[in-house]
Amino acid sequence: MSVLTFVDGLIPVIVQDSESREILMMAYANEEAVRLSEETGYAHYYSRSRKKLWKKGEESGHFQRIVKILLDCDGDCIIYLVEQQGAACHTGYNSCFYRTLDGSVVGTKVFDPEKVYKKKVH
Amino acid sequence: MSVLTFVDGLIPVIVQDSESREILMMAYANEEAVRLSEETGYAHYYSRSRKKLWKKGEESGHFQRIVKILLDCDGDCIIYLVEQQGAACHTGYNSCFYRTLDGSVVGTKVFDPEKVYKKKVH
Repeated sequence: MSVLTFVDGLIPVIVQDSESREILMMAYANEEAVRLSEETGYAHYYSRSRKKLWKKGEESGHFQRIVKILLDCDGDCIIYLVEQQGAACHTGYNSCFYRTLDGSVVGTKVFDPEKVYKKKVH
Repeated sequence: MSVLTFVDGLIPVIVQDSESREILMMAYANEEAVRLSEETGYAHYYSRSRKKLWKKGEESGHFQRIVKILLDCDGDCIIYLVEQQGAACHTGYNSCFYRTLDGSVVGTKVFDPEKVYKKKVH
């Protein structure tokens, strides 16, 4: 993993659907999360707010199977190419990027977050 | 722009080809760079190393025409959907993400960087 540069222990991860090529989300990983993603074949991240490692889907069931991991020219950003189960965004949209800057909704709502997370979701 | 969250004045920008949906690069923008991208229709960023605003293509001629700007659910990451002129990566590859983590080259080399930048490129 020496090929990657972690800043304050973290590297930004862009998550892309390997089939549709839609960008699903952006999150951060530490070295352990990248290693676990490679070893288990399921996407792992590091939550900066909760200060802990997490596996996508552990609460929602919406796991991401890793198809390939790409790194950029500088080695300071990676892409997880994934097969997404359910949807990526906690709001119920398929992708976290469901809005344009001028406020139009361009994404597709896939699930009701209150049913999936059993609580109010903001 | 109050809908966006800038951390230390910056927001990560994922750059995606609007046609092929290939992820081309990842960079950072400050508020002025986002505003200029919207107003001029060409991608602008903020260089953390050079501590200055830059317009993609100003040296290489490889400009990025903005098609759409998307933001994520938290408003702390944006996507520039662009029409790329030339190639995105300073190494001559179409995308900065031309390698897998295990070292395979999966990208396409589009230009010779030493001819474009008139100097040795690392």
